[in-house]
Amino acid sequence: MATQKLADWSTNLTFASLPREVIDAATQSFYNWAGCTVGGSTHPATTIARTALARFTGTPTSRLLGSGGVDLDAMHAALLNGIASHVHDYDDTHLDTIIHPTGPVASALLAMAESLDRSVSGQEFILALVVGVEAECKVGLAVWPNHYDVGWHITSSTGSIGAAVAVSKLLNLSTQQTAHAIGLAATQVTGLREMFGSHTKSFHPGRAAQNGLLAAILASEGYTSSTEALEAKRGWANVVSSEHHLDEQMATLPPNGRWEMARNSFKPFPCGIVVHPVIDGSIFLHGQLGPNGIQIEEIREVEVIVHPLVLELTGKTAPKDGLEAKFSVYHGAAVGLLFGKATPAQYEDAVVTDERVIWLRDRIRATVDGNLRPDEAVVIMRVPNGGEGDDDSVTEIHVDHAVGSRERPMSVAQLTDKFVDQCISVLGRERTERASKWCWELEKQVDVRQIKTVL
Amino acid sequence: MATQKLADWSTNLTFASLPREVIDAATQSFYNWAGCTVGGSTHPATTIARTALARFTGTPTSRLLGSGGVDLDAMHAALLNGIASHVHDYDDTHLDTIIHPTGPVASALLAMAESLDRSVSGQEFILALVVGVEAECKVGLAVWPNHYDVGWHITSSTGSIGAAVAVSKLLNLSTQQTAHAIGLAATQVTGLREMFGSHTKSFHPGRAAQNGLLAAILASEGYTSSTEALEAKRGWANVVSSEHHLDEQMATLPPNGRWEMARNSFKPFPCGIVVHPVIDGSIFLHGQLGPNGIQIEEIREVEVIVHPLVLELTGKTAPKDGLEAKFSVYHGAAVGLLFGKATPAQYEDAVVTDERVIWLRDRIRATVDGNLRPDEAVVIMRVPNGGEGDDDSVTEIHVDHAVGSRERPMSVAQLTDKFVDQCISVLGRERTERASKWCWELEKQVDVRQIKTVL
Repeated sequence: MATQKLADWSTNLTFASLPREVIDAATQSFYNWAGCTVGGSTHPATTIARTALARFTGTPTSRLLGSGGVDLDAMHAALLNGIASHVHDYDDTHLDTIIHPTGPVASALLAMAESLDRSVSGQEFILALVVGVEAECKVGLAVWPNHYDVGWHITSSTGSIGAAVAVSKLLNLSTQQTAHAIGLAATQVTGLREMFGSHTKSFHPGRAAQNGLLAAILASEGYTSSTEALEAKRGWANVVSSEHHLDEQMATLPPNGRWEMARNSFKPFPCGIVVHPVIDGSIFLHGQLGPNGIQIEEIREVEVIVHPLVLELTGKTAPKDGLEAKFSVYHGAAVGLLFGKATPAQYEDAVVTDERVIWLRDRIRATVDGNLRPDEAVVIMRVPNGGEGDDDSVTEIHVDHAVGSRERPMSVAQLTDKFVDQCISVLGRERTERASKWCWELEKQVDVRQIKTVL
Repeated sequence: MATQKLADWSTNLTFASLPREVIDAATQSFYNWAGCTVGGSTHPATTIARTALARFTGTPTSRLLGSGGVDLDAMHAALLNGIASHVHDYDDTHLDTIIHPTGPVASALLAMAESLDRSVSGQEFILALVVGVEAECKVGLAVWPNHYDVGWHITSSTGSIGAAVAVSKLLNLSTQQTAHAIGLAATQVTGLREMFGSHTKSFHPGRAAQNGLLAAILASEGYTSSTEALEAKRGWANVVSSEHHLDEQMATLPPNGRWEMARNSFKPFPCGIVVHPVIDGSIFLHGQLGPNGIQIEEIREVEVIVHPLVLELTGKTAPKDGLEAKFSVYHGAAVGLLFGKATPAQYEDAVVTDERVIWLRDRIRATVDGNLRPDEAVVIMRVPNGGEGDDDSVTEIHVDHAVGSRERPMSVAQLTDKFVDQCISVLGRERTERASKWCWELEKQVDVRQIKTVL
């Protein structure tokens, strides 16, 4: 039932049924994905994979974003763009499932769209992106939290399915073919959480994009699968989770139900989302520093009060490189305070091993408070008064909701800054601005294949 | 520990440490795989995938077996040969885990070997095949039976790992690189049992071959993964099984422990292995029929007495096509009795829907007996006496161990017949005989890349 229902829903959804907020959220999601993908295109995880797989690429049709004009076959473009989009842990988050939804779906969809012999309008692209994101988030909600708890990287384990549904929509597959594509995607369960901290974490959304793309292409030519792949006794949900709520989730499919796309959020900082309130607070405190006020060297201690999950997930006190620093609330607090920002530049290996960063990182003390929400934190900076007694001068900030949370979403201006910051060193200023404009205008594009003219 | 141990073991194993029986088993496994792959090369599951993916293939280096001279890139050759090798359910079986071990490993290994710029001797190839098969069977044993029971197609879910280890060996990767390759393979968990009966079942070993090949290639260029991928809290074994015995199994690695390769067996009939004793008995009874004895039309009933698993797995009474017939003990008994053989020809759609086959199939009655082993069966043919009273003339055969079981392995002659039967309609007699000779002489080959001269 669930598989057929999802396939049927997807094949019948039209652009006209998308509310404005969903179109806007899809545009922002695509925009944020494109910036992250360009930004991640020069990371070793991306470049190693690109070099390793060069001899396997077929007819070049689809742009490797950030490459300065290199096209690959759609399958490899999907993989490499998917890796790049996630490698800085800077992408988007569907907070109810912590799925990073756009990576697997957009990477497959754009690569496939570029390979077609016909034009694909921005509206058609947005519609396919929406069905893909809805699909992965609904199946994700159906197995959350058990599926994540047992150890699956839910972004990729559901992302294959999302990508398959999206590409099926783009290819105008029938309900039956879409169901087969879902089955083919569901049987490729990619992503163990054990891989976090290594290149393989970013491989996950890339491979999920490829899994879904492969599934839809095979199904489009008549390759068969189970049409009860999601719900069967030995189907996806029962195998990958000790508990599931597929029927309940399929009953919430929009427009009658809830649009998951509208609940997507964007990361202001390139690390695990639980660190964000601390970084947010640290950046605020950075604004309180010198030239005539407090100097960094005077700081005696910074206390961060956080939700227990923060130390469980990001408790590394002495990260050795950029990938490890993403799992260190101490590093996040230190760079926020020291530099007043936390972008991929503050997570480069050289920054992680910089003496001043280490000095400050060692002065961060974390305290757990179970009464806080995960997107809430208190950051307290203590500086000796210099006078008599032991009293410190105390500066404190209570971050009620971190920037990027649903309550304090990133603004269009902030998303633009993030995009520009990621693209400018790769593309230069002029091309970055053209690309930014093109991506913001996705809905109006007559043919998304023209992305090659700007990216 | 387990991941490092497996990687360390694989990198250090030498051809000199392989016992004769292991070399012979590896040769038979390769030989049987090659025949099955040629035989499956014309099946729709293979040809649909080949058509669908044609535009994605890169530098052609690696032979699509049975194609009459078509080369693809190694990644696509691995996928398509892997699909073809399994599509008739006619491959090999490691009976302790019911893994079909050679498909994922040999499909990746041969494709990769052909793409190298250097010669690969038959001995080097056999060694890599052995480490791959040992790896997948040992990790399979470590999670058996829970992993299979929950719904994973254990052939592909372990096959990715086997293929990664085999290709790592071929590429002379370091222990550390091999561990990363194992991690990259382990995170791509492919194969739900729900897909049995559709094309996707055969996709599983093909995709597993590709997963493992991709993993080894990425690791060879420095892509990183977890080096505790198998045993970590949220690593492969804990995520894919409620229980595991990784350390115990790694302690059984040969030559000190047990060679799983030597325990491989080959299917005499193209269907689920539990049907084999019934087919074996039915073929015996076929030998008792006319021209002057009993005629098929006279049969009143055939009773098959089987292990309970037989009806659970293969209880389809009225299969609609060849793929469904593989899950019908009734079809197996009928064709064995009617034709005296059960090869892929007896599982073609036209045979499954043939009136005589249906007539006889409807006269098969199955009885369960929990005292029988799975490889044991009794087949009883009842024909009315034609005289007075109700008595039947009864002919009965008790198959103690089916042909193909460990107790009654297929002989070299039987394996050759099976190879020839599968290849002859694809390659013709002369090429089939040359290919058969070349494959039997694998150990002596100076360069396995020369397989192109015969296949």
